[in-house]
Amino acid sequence: MINIAVLGYGTIGAGVVEVLEVNKKIIAHHAGYEINVKYVLDLRDFPNDRIQEKIVHDYNIILQDPQIKIVVEAMGGINPAYEFARKALESGKSVVTSNKELVAKHGAELLKLAKESSLNFLFEASVGGGIPIIRPLNRSLTADVITEISGILNGTTNFILTKMQMEGLPFDAVLKEAQERGYAERNPEADVEGHDAGRKIAILSSLAHGLQVDYDKIYTEGITKITDIDVKYAKYLDASIRLVATCKTVEAGTYARVSPMLLDSDHPLADVYDVYNAVHVKGNMVGSLKFQGQGAGKLPTASAVVGDIVDAAKHPHINIPMYWDEQKLELLDIDLVPVKFFVRVIGDINENREKIDNLYGNVKYVLIPSLVNEFAFITEEFTEKEHREKLSNIINVVSKIRTTL
Amino acid sequence: MINIAVLGYGTIGAGVVEVLEVNKKIIAHHAGYEINVKYVLDLRDFPNDRIQEKIVHDYNIILQDPQIKIVVEAMGGINPAYEFARKALESGKSVVTSNKELVAKHGAELLKLAKESSLNFLFEASVGGGIPIIRPLNRSLTADVITEISGILNGTTNFILTKMQMEGLPFDAVLKEAQERGYAERNPEADVEGHDAGRKIAILSSLAHGLQVDYDKIYTEGITKITDIDVKYAKYLDASIRLVATCKTVEAGTYARVSPMLLDSDHPLADVYDVYNAVHVKGNMVGSLKFQGQGAGKLPTASAVVGDIVDAAKHPHINIPMYWDEQKLELLDIDLVPVKFFVRVIGDINENREKIDNLYGNVKYVLIPSLVNEFAFITEEFTEKEHREKLSNIINVVSKIRTTL
Repeated sequence: MINIAVLGYGTIGAGVVEVLEVNKKIIAHHAGYEINVKYVLDLRDFPNDRIQEKIVHDYNIILQDPQIKIVVEAMGGINPAYEFARKALESGKSVVTSNKELVAKHGAELLKLAKESSLNFLFEASVGGGIPIIRPLNRSLTADVITEISGILNGTTNFILTKMQMEGLPFDAVLKEAQERGYAERNPEADVEGHDAGRKIAILSSLAHGLQVDYDKIYTEGITKITDIDVKYAKYLDASIRLVATCKTVEAGTYARVSPMLLDSDHPLADVYDVYNAVHVKGNMVGSLKFQGQGAGKLPTASAVVGDIVDAAKHPHINIPMYWDEQKLELLDIDLVPVKFFVRVIGDINENREKIDNLYGNVKYVLIPSLVNEFAFITEEFTEKEHREKLSNIINVVSKIRTTL
Repeated sequence: MINIAVLGYGTIGAGVVEVLEVNKKIIAHHAGYEINVKYVLDLRDFPNDRIQEKIVHDYNIILQDPQIKIVVEAMGGINPAYEFARKALESGKSVVTSNKELVAKHGAELLKLAKESSLNFLFEASVGGGIPIIRPLNRSLTADVITEISGILNGTTNFILTKMQMEGLPFDAVLKEAQERGYAERNPEADVEGHDAGRKIAILSSLAHGLQVDYDKIYTEGITKITDIDVKYAKYLDASIRLVATCKTVEAGTYARVSPMLLDSDHPLADVYDVYNAVHVKGNMVGSLKFQGQGAGKLPTASAVVGDIVDAAKHPHINIPMYWDEQKLELLDIDLVPVKFFVRVIGDINENREKIDNLYGNVKYVLIPSLVNEFAFITEEFTEKEHREKLSNIINVVSKIRTTL
């Protein structure tokens, strides 16, 4: 039997306890030991819940109990999660977490600490919820140079964009519904401004390149400026608007970015709907791979956490190598990143056409009959800086979205 | 440095040598050692190829060289692959293979042998080519009871069915083109009769349940009877015909089957085109997951083989646990498997309707205006045996295809 402690009895913590209970037998078979939750750390008490007998309020009880081999951090945020994770590793306990903030910020350091102590720091659930992506990146795709890793990594924004697409509603109305249904937080900034996706692509990029990618260095643009008119154009073009987090290597270097993208219908991420997540990986040998599943939710996320608990239980004094050094990956300046834009302009196409043609050369114009006094065009590939210079000459640009069209 | 030997310098063997060469640096970084191909076993000589200096014709040279730690079996077939794999393990060398016949037939036994000797027998490339699926099943989804695993596991038949769908051509014409383009063998039986997919689903089912599933016990039906008229119905219904290999647990038990399926457009496997492969996994906690990528081809398959070589190199005297006992999984008799059918009938619908309604109760009729003197219907769920009995009463049934519609 292996004893573990769960930190935080919120959605994920409760999910972990539930998965360990429901699938007790098969989990014991895979781990080689029965997994026993000895403590659950929470500030609250749960007087009408069987969990109450395991509740402790003092983390030192867990740290000082030599029976505890694995600590499951399910609290979220940096404080005190970071300190608790570090102390667990320093006390000879492996750590499993679903906390993308913690992993994005302190992943390299905690991995190093785990390695030095022949322990493990595992975080499959921190990106893509139940989708196995951390372990495949780290242990399967070891023969490839990863040239691109792109994903739909935030279920809330994908729900909003899907709903806008299906029902033609404006952003604010859909956000309100998402909040009412519990898919979006009351303060939705981390989701809709792209910060959550940014932390997740920082983790994936770091693992794909073996070097630290800081999430605050990643160009991040949210979906709050996407309007129902933009979505109308997308539908007219048989395309989809998605919040895409990407890390890609091009001739000029490797860049990372989170932004809305207008995706053509053949793009691997175009058909990812609702709260689903997907990760698209390109390797120089394996070609294109896609991993899709439930990127959030109590049980899928808990399933990934428990998968890591099993792995930690199977490797009690063996560090599973992970390639993520503290050294920084040099990212290409966003100004130098090549990209195509979809650009919407208010005004008459005939009065603007000559100027646009002179600035851009070849563009594809889009006119929707029912939309008067506006038009759109799709550019060829230029750098972000070149686009900014060109577009500064065009009056009344009302939206511009990066595109694969 | 770790020395390895490659058995067979065909497409996969040459791909393995190429991947190890092109990505030498990153592979060494992941493995912790440089990987050196010391021998390539082949009956042939390659006088104008640099590989010639490594070619040996006698397997004993490899077996007797204590420097060789890993043997890569890339010959295919059972003989002599099985004997060679067994002898390698008996000589203290780990074995990596892409050979689904070998793995489906002798996987459990070779895993046991590897475990007893603290070696590894790895076979990520045997199913789904470059798609990571064996390792995620074995090492990520350890917290779940797998209730279904279904896949498009054969690129040749998927290319044929996609082409029939896109171009409305009959089976024979498309098969001929696939043979000319090298996508289908001159003797296409293993692919088009479903035997290749059957071996692959046998491997996945065995790993999902931890027990042996014999591929010759799996109900297998190929695509040779699928006509361009069937495809016309599929398009009319906004559905797709795919060769689906599945292992699913229902109330009555667990069944395994390979057969053409008429899939509704929302089915996770409906949008898998051309030579792509995909695997859809359902777990009782994680929900629905989909893994998609290139299921065949020299470099994607070699990428998976080299990923296993890296894993074997990282675990020189440590057996990586795999859950696949020699004990058989009891499969539900195919007669008792519940299924819906799409049924095509030659004749007038009005002359048949009463009989069909009496036999089946609720069915959905399908009439395509341009097809005279025939119609189709889609049943509700009954067992295979019940369907057989009911359909024996209907004259002129020209095709029946299992369906999710």
